[in-house]
Amino acid sequence: MTQTANTHVVIREVGLRDGLQIEKPIPLSAKLELLAALAATGVREVEATAFVSPTKVPSMADAAELAAHLHNYPAIEFSALVASPNGAKRAVAAGLRSIEYVVAADDAFSTANVGRTTAEATAQIDEIVDIAHGSPDFPVTVEVIVATAWDSPFEGPTPPQRVLEIAATARDRGVDRLSIADTIGTTTPGRVNSLIAQLLPVIGDLPLGAHLHNTRGAGLASAYAAVTAGVTRLDASVGGLGGCPFAPGATGNIATEDLVYLLTDSGFTVDVDLRAAIAAAEVAKLAVGHDLPGALLHAGDRIRD
Amino acid sequence: MTQTANTHVVIREVGLRDGLQIEKPIPLSAKLELLAALAATGVREVEATAFVSPTKVPSMADAAELAAHLHNYPAIEFSALVASPNGAKRAVAAGLRSIEYVVAADDAFSTANVGRTTAEATAQIDEIVDIAHGSPDFPVTVEVIVATAWDSPFEGPTPPQRVLEIAATARDRGVDRLSIADTIGTTTPGRVNSLIAQLLPVIGDLPLGAHLHNTRGAGLASAYAAVTAGVTRLDASVGGLGGCPFAPGATGNIATEDLVYLLTDSGFTVDVDLRAAIAAAEVAKLAVGHDLPGALLHAGDRIRD
Repeated sequence: MTQTANTHVVIREVGLRDGLQIEKPIPLSAKLELLAALAATGVREVEATAFVSPTKVPSMADAAELAAHLHNYPAIEFSALVASPNGAKRAVAAGLRSIEYVVAADDAFSTANVGRTTAEATAQIDEIVDIAHGSPDFPVTVEVIVATAWDSPFEGPTPPQRVLEIAATARDRGVDRLSIADTIGTTTPGRVNSLIAQLLPVIGDLPLGAHLHNTRGAGLASAYAAVTAGVTRLDASVGGLGGCPFAPGATGNIATEDLVYLLTDSGFTVDVDLRAAIAAAEVAKLAVGHDLPGALLHAGDRIRD
Repeated sequence: MTQTANTHVVIREVGLRDGLQIEKPIPLSAKLELLAALAATGVREVEATAFVSPTKVPSMADAAELAAHLHNYPAIEFSALVASPNGAKRAVAAGLRSIEYVVAADDAFSTANVGRTTAEATAQIDEIVDIAHGSPDFPVTVEVIVATAWDSPFEGPTPPQRVLEIAATARDRGVDRLSIADTIGTTTPGRVNSLIAQLLPVIGDLPLGAHLHNTRGAGLASAYAAVTAGVTRLDASVGGLGGCPFAPGATGNIATEDLVYLLTDSGFTVDVDLRAAIAAAEVAKLAVGHDLPGALLHAGDRIRD
């Protein structure tokens, strides 16, 4: 299942959700401007928002209002993050076509994050799938994202077995996709390869994605390892928007345009146009009012152009 | 010749030379403080300075003065960059044990950089080897660094054949090591793998190194690709010190401490201690008086520690 050049990689843009999550809330109009710039890149999947507690995550309080604008981009599959069946119901009611349900692989993080142990969060997958697949208008896709798949900020390295158990349950419950997330940005290519090699036999033909952070500089190296090891979907954030709540001042998500550069220069194909992605990063920078860590924002794609 | 985990990678610290080259000159005392911090990391090879024109590179004008202090660190092999036989003579006279001679693989860059075409610069390898190996006190090691090995700022992608020709000549002339340099920071893992696969049969058992920049975010990904493809030596700069003269404001060298984190977490062994390397990056930051791009400088190595 090892991938080589000429493989297509689906890039999901997560700037509007993971990127903005720890920013001060920005106006809906600014989000819509950024969305328009992202749509112009050709991206096919966008994580638009999260249906979570507006008290805990004020920057996502406008989830339903934002969702009302998404029909303007019929070529894009929009997803929303949810942390409970109630969030899933709100996402479905708002017309989202795809739901991401997060299950953290370690109990301490899971409890701190959503007030439920890993087992309790895993047990809710069934109900989430019922809500999504039973949507009255159209079937809604469910992706389970395994958070803290490599390391926890509280418990150190996550035993791979815990990730495999969540994956097996997700597969048995009929989810549509699985994703593994390096929540605190500590993993590296060697451990990425190792976990994917253990996961592939468990998940069969379930599409596998990775959500990687560049907090310790290894995000793009891990992303490249992931796609060569069998991952076909990668999350990335415009301009590298989004920090790491566990490492104040540090870089968070891998930057979409940097990922596009790396993958296409290495022979993979993606849907996202590089120049348009750099332009979108400039829009993101203006939207949040500060510089962003993306490398191409500072260097340009190639000097000779 | 593909490497796997448990392989040892030699990290050569280039902060004092490539890192400081485009900085405003700093006092010799500040360089010596940084050197002491670097020595405390356990690093075994350090590029200390360059014997080049003090008019063109004022930050290296103190090369001979700095060299006079290197005997204080007998466990470290110090090298100096040279661009001509005259520079090689100065380096040998100053007591350096290792010389790096740069040959740029494209004529436009080579001519702009040293006033000689690639063929003219290649023709000097013989004389450089004679000067180094014939040193009266002890034999001096010669490494040929192929600059613009993947891309030129003037001519676009470098035909691999040009790199292979320099490598074959260097091998025939009896150099001790070869290195390939991504001078403008544009290469990515796919092209790193490709060039190394073509080089290995040409160079036989000549040790192969890579000098990679993080200008477009792909430096660490390319470094990981390099060591899995057969490179056993990597250059890196403390804190990511050093920009890219062709992309003002952009990141330059890969950061030593980020590389150490990535390689050791992925199962490779290195000589450099991670905590000491982060401490050295703090010293480098003070020495140049501005922030540095290294990720671990901002994030720390692991939250739980």
